Amino acid sequence: MREEIYVLRLGHRTERDKRITTHVGLVARAFGAKGILFIGIEKDIKQKIDEVTEMWGGPFETQIIEKNWKEIILKWKETEGIIVHLTMYGIPVDLIIDEIRKDKRKKLVVIGAEKVPKELYTLSDFNVSITNQPHSEVAALAIFLDRFYMGKEIGLKFSDAKLTIVPTERGKKVIES
Amino acid sequence: MREEIYVLRLGHRTERDKRITTHVGLVARAFGAKGILFIGIEKDIKQKIDEVTEMWGGPFETQIIEKNWKEIILKWKETEGIIVHLTMYGIPVDLIIDEIRKDKRKKLVVIGAEKVPKELYTLSDFNVSITNQPHSEVAALAIFLDRFYMGKEIGLKFSDAKLTIVPTERGKKVIES
Repeated sequence: MREEIYVLRLGHRTERDKRITTHVGLVARAFGAKGILFIGIEKDIKQKIDEVTEMWGGPFETQIIEKNWKEIILKWKETEGIIVHLTMYGIPVDLIIDEIRKDKRKKLVVIGAEKVPKELYTLSDFNVSITNQPHSEVAALAIFLDRFYMGKEIGLKFSDAKLTIVPTERGKKVIES
Repeated sequence: MREEIYVLRLGHRTERDKRITTHVGLVARAFGAKGILFIGIEKDIKQKIDEVTEMWGGPFETQIIEKNWKEIILKWKETEGIIVHLTMYGIPVDLIIDEIRKDKRKKLVVIGAEKVPKELYTLSDFNVSITNQPHSEVAALAIFLDRFYMGKEIGLKFSDAKLTIVPTERGKKVIES
């Protein structure tokens, strides 16, 4: 089920954003993206996400790139596919998601922090809003992937998991393998 | 559309969780909860969320309570309604959401950080998972509310907004009133 969707995290500003950036990475994995690209972040964030993949299964790629956002986006457009930018100012997800899903090119879903460069809006193939309210790039990414996969990502199976949860009404049930 | 759903944020551990806790509050508001309860957090987190409500509309209540989690939950069960605990170990949201929606009692949606007290699993009326993978309480809350409201919260209108976005393909279009 996992399609050619990668996530690019913009606007990480060390320390204060560490947990948010980690959550973004874990959501990308859990909700069916193939991987995430970070720009110049602390190595321990990547490591934390890789450890989750190691324990709970994959595949999921993480990569730290030491280039600026524009180079990455221009290169993606030239050699890989399209850019989908999640922003509260964009077209409501439910109006545009079918068109995005039908487009079979590889997708880079770009999520920023509070401020993103203006130019990103024109470089993106789609500017998509997940509500037109301020909230969270973590939530925006989850809802976007959920709409894209039409909810099927909720039951996504991961390969080579050392730990698997058996859903239960009360308490915790985990199988180790 | 906004039903009697409140959110309780558990496990906030100062500074490092500030941004996550803020995102949780903003997601609660944007996705149609009526309010959020925090336990002993820094006042500037509440203030940040209240400022968003002031600018982008409401109603949305925020409250900092100086009690322990168990007192709050027991009191809620006694005087208000039911507890819905979001946890990766629980019953998959899509299997249980109709039952939760049909239950017309007031709901307290409890979301924790990495570790939550064991007793919470037995005190909760529903333990609900949003995927059985580790990811983010921010994303879990968004998806839960999205399922609960069947996606209608995405277009939720807020009252007394000073700023309203007009969705646009490229750039930012905001109406001030």
